[in-house]
Amino acid sequence: MPTSQLEPAKTSAASNARVGAVVGRDLTPVTYYPVPMQRQFFANQAAIGTKPYAEFFHPDLTVPIAWAKALQRGPLSPEQALSPSVADINQVLDPSRRFPDAGYAVLEEGPCAYTQSRIEMAGVTTDMFRWWFLWHPIEKERYSLWFPWAHVDNYVEDPARLADTSLSYEQRLYGNPNHVEEFVGPSSLKLIMHFTEPTELGLDAAVLRRAGITASASATIRVADAPEITFMFMLHLARDTDRGLELFSRYWIGAHPEFKRFPGGADGPALLKKMGMDRHSLETLAYEMAVHDMTEFNHLATILPAVHRAFGH
Amino acid sequence: MPTSQLEPAKTSAASNARVGAVVGRDLTPVTYYPVPMQRQFFANQAAIGTKPYAEFFHPDLTVPIAWAKALQRGPLSPEQALSPSVADINQVLDPSRRFPDAGYAVLEEGPCAYTQSRIEMAGVTTDMFRWWFLWHPIEKERYSLWFPWAHVDNYVEDPARLADTSLSYEQRLYGNPNHVEEFVGPSSLKLIMHFTEPTELGLDAAVLRRAGITASASATIRVADAPEITFMFMLHLARDTDRGLELFSRYWIGAHPEFKRFPGGADGPALLKKMGMDRHSLETLAYEMAVHDMTEFNHLATILPAVHRAFGH
Repeated sequence: MPTSQLEPAKTSAASNARVGAVVGRDLTPVTYYPVPMQRQFFANQAAIGTKPYAEFFHPDLTVPIAWAKALQRGPLSPEQALSPSVADINQVLDPSRRFPDAGYAVLEEGPCAYTQSRIEMAGVTTDMFRWWFLWHPIEKERYSLWFPWAHVDNYVEDPARLADTSLSYEQRLYGNPNHVEEFVGPSSLKLIMHFTEPTELGLDAAVLRRAGITASASATIRVADAPEITFMFMLHLARDTDRGLELFSRYWIGAHPEFKRFPGGADGPALLKKMGMDRHSLETLAYEMAVHDMTEFNHLATILPAVHRAFGH
Repeated sequence: MPTSQLEPAKTSAASNARVGAVVGRDLTPVTYYPVPMQRQFFANQAAIGTKPYAEFFHPDLTVPIAWAKALQRGPLSPEQALSPSVADINQVLDPSRRFPDAGYAVLEEGPCAYTQSRIEMAGVTTDMFRWWFLWHPIEKERYSLWFPWAHVDNYVEDPARLADTSLSYEQRLYGNPNHVEEFVGPSSLKLIMHFTEPTELGLDAAVLRRAGITASASATIRVADAPEITFMFMLHLARDTDRGLELFSRYWIGAHPEFKRFPGGADGPALLKKMGMDRHSLETLAYEMAVHDMTEFNHLATILPAVHRAFGH
């Protein structure tokens, strides 16, 4: 009979292209990608071709063992899951609160899918983080570096403004909607991300200052088929620490009474109904979002320092 | 801010309950379980309670890195995928053919989901393998040991006959349909497995003898909602080697012209249509079946020697 073709894959850990690291966690290969992601990977691999950053396109992604296991142990208990209210979102940065580093849940109100994470990226700074959000939406192939199996397309409405280095981060990104297509689990989502000043989303300036947050990529998000309705709310709040960049992320997807402070946020329940989504499908979406977030941010940690060194000038 | 709660999980590799091993492969934790499997895991954990074999119920399953990666690289090419014809199934054991050790595909004829695997289990014998198929269907909690996240229920129509040690393996298992409920991906399937003498399924007695096959758990399978229609065909053919048990597995799911030799096998296309399944959903089912097979047989390899030592008398 044939001998095994299942030889251990060669590690690229020694590759110069992956000098970043995730602080204090044992990493393990991702063992599962849905079939549509497998097709997308091959499409992305073909598209990246001779792009100058092709060396940063990696098939072999790793995640912390303990993070993957934490997500497998079912949803968070209700008291661990925050609502998207102004009061709750300011607790994300409250040093007296202790949140699990990774988790998912469904909020009964809405209903609403909920995902949370915290990651420390060694060798990454908030400067690099802001640079990444201005650099990657210029070409979809750049976006594919971040999650080669799940990222499909990405462009902003005014790419010239996004690329204008004479302007600030806020001037380049805000009011410049980001059209994203990506797989979250086996389903691809077409989203329009409205990145916004975090204080306009309900975060308190004093809370941000005390926590030392110096970068944000936070947004209200609409699905492309219903661009008038806020369907999703996302926080990415980052600070520099002596261990590297620390990123706090939260995602709320679906409907929630607190979405009423955002454009079209009151129409979420009707949109959920139209999409045929219920509490069960939102619970699965919350877990898939958590797996997606775990995979893409742990991977970004490994490539961002080197990508920034090569193209950040 | 809180320190990480994501500590590395304690390994149970040193546990006496897991003395088995998979030959020549680097193992890695499974990083993904669909939400319905997470719920099933907790239900199974509660159910196993004080069963005498509860020590063999493990949450932390591992699979070979290279096997998981082989399945992520898209479907097999058509020439690597066998049909369920009599000519093709005898090629499974043809020493001149070289098949990938793990793979999935969709056969255009039918259409039909297709999954294949080969595994070597150190410390496992064909005697243990046959014993396992007679011992585990007596209680659903025994079945849950095999795949604690995905196995729901299992019983045979005549448990007294299955347990009658005065009879042969064939007398105990054949003609004694096995009612199984299990998750394959996020969907639970209720199946009726008709384990059958492999020569009755089309395997040549001389081919089996030459290959040294001394155990089989091969079956035609119906879904519980359509018990007259053969919807699935499964081969598990095992032999003893100096490295341990070598198992050749094949699964065909859906419809195929060659299913006509099995009861109700001509009605597969109508059943597929009624179930709303097409080529795309069958491709996903083939991958999910491959992930399921990879997980359960690599795990069985780690527990079977000890479970057999404790209960095989």
